[in-house]
Amino acid sequence: MQIRLGGVTAAKGFQAASAAAEIKYKGRDDMAMVYSKEPCVVAGTFTKNLYKAAPVVWCKQIVESGKPVHAIVANSGVANACTGGEGLEYCRGTAEKASELLGIPADSVLLGSTGVIGKQMPMDKLEKGVELLAASLGDTDELATAAARAIMTTDTKEKQIAVEIEIDGKPVTIGGMAKGSGMIHPDMCTMLAFITTDAVISQAVLQKALSDVVDNTYNMISVDRDTSTNDTCVVIANGLAGNAEIPAEGEDYETFKEALFEVNKYLAMAIAGDGEGCTCLFECRVEGADTLETAKTVAKSVVCSNLTKTAVAGHDANWGRILCAAGYSGAQFDPDKLSLSFESVAGQIQIAENGKGVEYSEEKATEILSQEYVCAVINLNMGDEISSAWGCDLTHAYIEINADYRS
Amino acid sequence: MQIRLGGVTAAKGFQAASAAAEIKYKGRDDMAMVYSKEPCVVAGTFTKNLYKAAPVVWCKQIVESGKPVHAIVANSGVANACTGGEGLEYCRGTAEKASELLGIPADSVLLGSTGVIGKQMPMDKLEKGVELLAASLGDTDELATAAARAIMTTDTKEKQIAVEIEIDGKPVTIGGMAKGSGMIHPDMCTMLAFITTDAVISQAVLQKALSDVVDNTYNMISVDRDTSTNDTCVVIANGLAGNAEIPAEGEDYETFKEALFEVNKYLAMAIAGDGEGCTCLFECRVEGADTLETAKTVAKSVVCSNLTKTAVAGHDANWGRILCAAGYSGAQFDPDKLSLSFESVAGQIQIAENGKGVEYSEEKATEILSQEYVCAVINLNMGDEISSAWGCDLTHAYIEINADYRS
Repeated sequence: MQIRLGGVTAAKGFQAASAAAEIKYKGRDDMAMVYSKEPCVVAGTFTKNLYKAAPVVWCKQIVESGKPVHAIVANSGVANACTGGEGLEYCRGTAEKASELLGIPADSVLLGSTGVIGKQMPMDKLEKGVELLAASLGDTDELATAAARAIMTTDTKEKQIAVEIEIDGKPVTIGGMAKGSGMIHPDMCTMLAFITTDAVISQAVLQKALSDVVDNTYNMISVDRDTSTNDTCVVIANGLAGNAEIPAEGEDYETFKEALFEVNKYLAMAIAGDGEGCTCLFECRVEGADTLETAKTVAKSVVCSNLTKTAVAGHDANWGRILCAAGYSGAQFDPDKLSLSFESVAGQIQIAENGKGVEYSEEKATEILSQEYVCAVINLNMGDEISSAWGCDLTHAYIEINADYRS
Repeated sequence: MQIRLGGVTAAKGFQAASAAAEIKYKGRDDMAMVYSKEPCVVAGTFTKNLYKAAPVVWCKQIVESGKPVHAIVANSGVANACTGGEGLEYCRGTAEKASELLGIPADSVLLGSTGVIGKQMPMDKLEKGVELLAASLGDTDELATAAARAIMTTDTKEKQIAVEIEIDGKPVTIGGMAKGSGMIHPDMCTMLAFITTDAVISQAVLQKALSDVVDNTYNMISVDRDTSTNDTCVVIANGLAGNAEIPAEGEDYETFKEALFEVNKYLAMAIAGDGEGCTCLFECRVEGADTLETAKTVAKSVVCSNLTKTAVAGHDANWGRILCAAGYSGAQFDPDKLSLSFESVAGQIQIAENGKGVEYSEEKATEILSQEYVCAVINLNMGDEISSAWGCDLTHAYIEINADYRS
């Protein structure tokens, strides 16, 4: 597997565009489009929140219908969630505008929105935005990057990646972009992630691979334990790589799934590491668990703990809070067997063994905890299962961003 | 039911004391004692965290043995959690010291600790503290207040209350004190709550009443979703009121349980309203639920949401976050039937109806949200069940307190 430059336009036959529609933000792009002339099969995972944003309802209908997809239109600034019947009308209007301009069916247009919940959409601006997008499509890396930037809200960095694998002797590319910074605690999938691939693959196999991957990537990150109304991850595949169709199991399936995993893991970690107001990506890796479920439950509980997150913000090896978060996670393990260490580019340090503290240098621990990527390694010493979860520290900037987000 | 001045010494036959043992803090009292010459029956509820602090293990053994209790000794500064076998030795040593000075069995002494996890206890200071405590016991309100202050950590106010009821023609008093500010998300019971009563009641009936009450008080508050290693709530009853023994059901039981509920609800709300760094007590009252469980689940999800808590800190009626938190709570309801309003001493304002926003004055909403006690009222319009949960806003001060708590 090779990492390539670029994002959603890296795979053959995909174009992208971005535009400034002034839906909420001024002086920056706030709409993005992805387009494939070839029809694509689509797989998707969506939020489990009872309040599903209108574009989530729209996309679910398309994915469930099994119809081919040609385009994705996304906007930032307004989430089109809790907007009642009007919300789906905006979706229909946006898709019909794209349909008319690109000469494709309206129900081949996926939609994504992110921003304030409850505000109604300015339909005239949306339509104008679609016109600008359709007129500026292209397949360069620059356009992919601009599209990844257009869907940002409180994100500070665009998030995109592309990888190349070989299947059936043919190069196959998977590229994607994502956004997410606050209201990140995916329960099925995260905010917005759009993945493109030129692989030849059926919808059923693509959905199977995506569902597997999402459970171990987006569903293992948390910024603030708030599961969004808009969480959406879709993969569209246009088949231009010309490989023999990827089967539901076997070597080619595993190769594809691993590449899809790497793309989504990268994007998920990028979202966690760009959590609102954060200064570091905080990973908890749980080793030695008796079941995978135990490893996942403990890891997620630790990265979700406000007290752990504030300790990381203070570069403070306050390990009692980590054991406490493991202890209330709901997973069953022997608390007296647990050991804990911290790792980062500054080194590795043992902190606790057999459920209680050991002698260590606070100075060294603080140095390790002062890096941009910090990992708490828990060994439960009860088996061989391993899992990681990713989060971030909790800082003053999170409060600043969220105590006054709407204004 | 009448509210009385005072706390743990309000009921007949109870004495209290506080002392400065310099376990961690300097220049303030950090140990407290409650004592009854008459033997007491005891009921208790404790944390479900796998890491149970040594005093929790100690108290559970006593409560389960059914033996009579004479005293409670508590300290702040060090939690005696994750301290291994040494932890229980500190408990034994403390109880034996109290036993020797007060002439009571060591296993009639309940213990509570709160503070930093993982640090070993300074045993000499603890023993010195018990000596000071035993020498200064008395039954005044001032001593009760001093005891309530001695168990505070990041709390800014002491928390105590006493009520008087009549049972079998006799006045019965229930008084209590509690502490809690951070690591508050009780799963069975909160940090430390010590309740005294002179009621004549069996251990079984006392435990039944306490368990009922705890589910609707401490288990419905959250400051930061971190379930502590030390959560303890114990009630001790010395029988000096001389009433006919309270039966397991009927009018006298209900009168007693209601009074116990009011005492614990007051203490639970006082803990939530004194959450680390908070500026207001934030209640979510869910009405019109089809089941009590649904009402509780939705209410708790809303007061636990970091995004809702930061919006309250900013006095911002960002209602989409509240609907979002209700929607991901896991409870089932019809999202299109929900209505939402805000209430405080500044008035009441309707914000959403049928799952979407209505026209309202942002200025008026901000005024209502700028008070010390703010309530979000959700009506699910699906039944008659009602429940409240209590939390607080999330502010810069929470970060300040927790990014550097240990130093």
